[in-house]
Amino acid sequence: MKGNITGNNRFLKEFNQTVVLDMIRVHKAISKAELSKLTGLSPTAIGVIVAELLEMGYITESGIGESNGGRRPILIELKPQSLYTIGVDMDVKYISLVLMDTTSRIIGEKTLDMPQNMIFEKVMDVIQSEIGKIIKEYGISTEKLLGIGLSVPGMVDSRECKIVFAPNLGWENVDIKHQFPDLPGIKVYVENEAMASAISENWIGCCQGIKNFVCINIKSGIGSGIFIDGKPYRGASGITGEIGHMMVDSNGLKCNCGNYGCLETIASTTRIVEQAKRLVKEGVASKLNDIQDVEEISAQSIIDAARDGDAVSVNLLLESARFLGLAISSIVNILNPEKVILGKEFVTYADIVLDHLKEIVRCKALKQTAKDIEITGSSLGERASLLGSAIIPLKVFFGK
Amino acid sequence: MKGNITGNNRFLKEFNQTVVLDMIRVHKAISKAELSKLTGLSPTAIGVIVAELLEMGYITESGIGESNGGRRPILIELKPQSLYTIGVDMDVKYISLVLMDTTSRIIGEKTLDMPQNMIFEKVMDVIQSEIGKIIKEYGISTEKLLGIGLSVPGMVDSRECKIVFAPNLGWENVDIKHQFPDLPGIKVYVENEAMASAISENWIGCCQGIKNFVCINIKSGIGSGIFIDGKPYRGASGITGEIGHMMVDSNGLKCNCGNYGCLETIASTTRIVEQAKRLVKEGVASKLNDIQDVEEISAQSIIDAARDGDAVSVNLLLESARFLGLAISSIVNILNPEKVILGKEFVTYADIVLDHLKEIVRCKALKQTAKDIEITGSSLGERASLLGSAIIPLKVFFGK
Repeated sequence: MKGNITGNNRFLKEFNQTVVLDMIRVHKAISKAELSKLTGLSPTAIGVIVAELLEMGYITESGIGESNGGRRPILIELKPQSLYTIGVDMDVKYISLVLMDTTSRIIGEKTLDMPQNMIFEKVMDVIQSEIGKIIKEYGISTEKLLGIGLSVPGMVDSRECKIVFAPNLGWENVDIKHQFPDLPGIKVYVENEAMASAISENWIGCCQGIKNFVCINIKSGIGSGIFIDGKPYRGASGITGEIGHMMVDSNGLKCNCGNYGCLETIASTTRIVEQAKRLVKEGVASKLNDIQDVEEISAQSIIDAARDGDAVSVNLLLESARFLGLAISSIVNILNPEKVILGKEFVTYADIVLDHLKEIVRCKALKQTAKDIEITGSSLGERASLLGSAIIPLKVFFGK
Repeated sequence: MKGNITGNNRFLKEFNQTVVLDMIRVHKAISKAELSKLTGLSPTAIGVIVAELLEMGYITESGIGESNGGRRPILIELKPQSLYTIGVDMDVKYISLVLMDTTSRIIGEKTLDMPQNMIFEKVMDVIQSEIGKIIKEYGISTEKLLGIGLSVPGMVDSRECKIVFAPNLGWENVDIKHQFPDLPGIKVYVENEAMASAISENWIGCCQGIKNFVCINIKSGIGSGIFIDGKPYRGASGITGEIGHMMVDSNGLKCNCGNYGCLETIASTTRIVEQAKRLVKEGVASKLNDIQDVEEISAQSIIDAARDGDAVSVNLLLESARFLGLAISSIVNILNPEKVILGKEFVTYADIVLDHLKEIVRCKALKQTAKDIEITGSSLGERASLLGSAIIPLKVFFGK
C-alpha cells in the first residue's frame, strides 16, 4: 500500500505542477496569490510548486503586478526558450518546419520543396535530416525537445501515429512512429492538416477558450477539424470532419472519392481554377484572357482579376462560396458550433466572398441554430496547420 | 475550515454512493467484492455504502452469486419500486405518459388524445392533471418521485427548461418550469424528442456503452439526437442534430424552414404520403388506387401496399430511404459515429428499405469513415422518446 500511496502522491504532484504551469500559460503573467485563488491550492502548496517549476527552469519571475493594497506582487511567466517543439507541415508542393518554445514563440522557420515523386520513405528522410539541422543550429539537447508534430493533408489515425490515406501525396497506411531512427527518444505525433489548424486556432488563434468550433481548410481539397467540448473530436475511428465529401449538389460531378456532387468538386481552389480555364477555352470574355497560356491560370490569377473588377472571376469565387455556405448551413444545423473558421487558401480571397457566404448561412441555416454563429477567415492565415503541428507536443506537455 | 471539510466529506460520500448505485444499475446484480474491485474503494468502505443504500431502501440483497472458491456471495440489485420517474411524450395527435422505477421497469402507461387547438397552457393543465392521477393511483409520495421528463417534437433549451420552437404544436419560447403549480417541489425536465430517443437507446436500448452515435427520428418531420463521448451533445445554444434541414437536393422543394431541398421535404412520412396522393390523382396505376378516398391514404396504407408487392409504393419508400442514406453519408463523413439508429415511424417500414439505405451509405460515404458503421432500426420502436423522457430524471439521480 505504501508504494501505492507514494505513487499516487507523485502522480498528484505532477498533476498539480501541470495544472499550475498551464494556468501560467493561459494567463501569460500571474501572481502566486492569483494562482492560489484560481487553483484552490493553499499559498504554501503554490509556493512549493512555483519553487519547483523555477528550479526546473520552466518559468521565470519577470515583472511586478498591480498592488491590491499591500506589496506589489511578483508575476510569474513561462520562461522563453526553456523547452522546444518542432512542427512539420506537408503539402504536395512544400514541406515547412517551425521551431517553437513553450511560450508559443517561433524561434525558427523554414520551407523547402517537396521531393519529386513524394516517395514516403524519401520524404521522411528529408524531414529527419532537416530536424537534425535545426537541432544542431539552435543547440537544442534531446531532453529539451518535447516532441515533433507532423501535419498531413489526409486522413490520419493520430492515436496510432499512422497516416491512413493521403490521396494527394499517394500515401496509404503508413506508420510514422519509426521513421526517425536518428532522433531516438523523441516523441512523434501526426495530425490531419485541418485538425492541426483547429488546434492552433484553439491555442493561439481566434478560438482560445471556445468549446465547440469547426475549422474548415479550403485549398486543392476541403477538410475540417472539429473541436467539441474543448477537445479535438475523433469519432469512432479517428477520421472526422470530412466536409469536402458532403454532397451539396445532387446533380454534381463525380468526385475522387467515388461519390457525386461533393463540396470538393465545386468549392476547392483546384475546381475554381478548372472552371476558369474552361471558360477561357470556351471564349468567354474576361480579364483571364489576358493570361497568355491558359494553363498558367491559377487561383491567384483569378483572385487578382476579381480584385481588378472582372465579373467572371468574381462570379467563380462567389459561386464556390455559395456552396461552401450551403455545406456550412448543414454543419450549423447539426453541430450548432460557436464559431466556423475558414482557412488556408480561402484567406487570400476571404474579403471578396465572406459577406456572401455569411448571407447564405443566414438564409439557409435554421435561425435558432445560426443566431449566434460567428464565421471568420483564419487570423493565422495559411500557416495555421504548421503552427498547429508544433503545438501538438505542447498540448501534451501542458496536460491538454 | 472544519465546516469545509465536513462539506467536502458529505459531497464525497454522496458522490461515492452515486457511483456505487450506478454500478449496481449497470451490472444489474453484483457482489460487494466486485463493487470493491471495480470502484477501487476498500471492502470496508463498500460495506458502509451498501448498508446506507439498503437503509435508504434503494437496493436489495436478492440472490446468491457464483462462488470463487469460498462462500457464495450475496448479490445486490436495485430495489424495484423504491423510487419513481414520470415521462411525458407529446405529439400533434397524442400525449403519452409512463411511470417507471429506478430499474427502468414500466409500472404504468397511458396515452390520450392531444387537446384540440393544442393551446400550450391547456396542454400543460392536462398533463398536470394526468400526472396527479398517476401519483394518486399508484400512491407515490412526492419524495419518492425523482422528477418529470417531457419529450417535445421541436427545439428545446433543456438547460433552461424551455421550448424554443415546436412548429407542429405552434409553441414558441415557452417556459416549462412553472407550469405545474399543483406539483410543488417536483423537478421538471424537457428534452427534444429525438434526443429523448437517443437517451433511451443509451440507457436501455441498443446504444448502451456506445460513446458516439446518432439517433434519427423519421415521422412527419426528421430530427436527431447526437451523443458524443457518452453524453448528449448540446452545441452552443442547445439546439443540435437538425438533420431534417440538411440540404440533400439542390433543386428541391421549399421547406417550412425557408430553405430549399431539406431532407424533410423528401424523406418525412408526410412527404411520402403527399407524393402517393399526387401519383393517385395523376392516375398512376398502383394498389393505392384501391383506397376509395385519396385523402385516406396514410403512411400505413403505403407500407401495406408495398408489402403487398405494389411497385409504386415500394419505390416511394425506397426513394425516401435513398435521400436519408445521402444525408447519413454526410453525417458519417463528418461525425464518424459508431452507430446510427433510425426510429419512430421508420421502424414500421425498416424491413422494406433498410438494406437499400445501408447500400447507399456504403457507396456514398468515404470507406474509411463508414467501414465500421452500424445502421439499424430502433429496437425500442416508436416508444423510444416516451421511455427516454422518463429516463431523464434517472440520469440525474445516477449521476450521468
